[in-house]
Amino acid sequence: MPKFMDVHRGMAGITEEQLMEAHNADLAIEGDEHVHFESAWADPEAGVVYCLSEAPSAEAVQRIHERAGHKADEVHPVPLSV
Amino acid sequence: MPKFMDVHRGMAGITEEQLMEAHNADLAIEGDEHVHFESAWADPEAGVVYCLSEAPSAEAVQRIHERAGHKADEVHPVPLSV
Repeated sequence: MPKFMDVHRGMAGITEEQLMEAHNADLAIEGDEHVHFESAWADPEAGVVYCLSEAPSAEAVQRIHERAGHKADEVHPVPLSV
Repeated sequence: MPKFMDVHRGMAGITEEQLMEAHNADLAIEGDEHVHFESAWADPEAGVVYCLSEAPSAEAVQRIHERAGHKADEVHPVPLSV
């Protein structure tokens, strides 16, 4: 399954609890689009969140994020990884 | 040990082999700064590479990347993760 890295901006001040809630909101509905969100990392000072997922397409990733209430600013296919 | 996500731009067309070589160049010297590069993901079309590391500081991450020949465009501390 292709992997994707998506980026959310404007998240300055995000807390551990808010990150967990957002991630859980994705997990609750990701199966509808055959997406799986593996991990997310947040820089609360710069307000940037990175999410790593496996999904059929970038559009599927975005549809889950939108329905969960936090549309991504960028969704990048990352076919290469080490 | 704090975690960091750094971002390299202008990498359009990067291949699996080039990503591996760059990662190995980091691994070869990372111990000098007590950094460990865990994973890297590349979008060859947009030319963006994301690197996840553990390190004492963002400056230590950048020093290793610079010495390895590929300075990062951004180095973000990511104290929150799920």
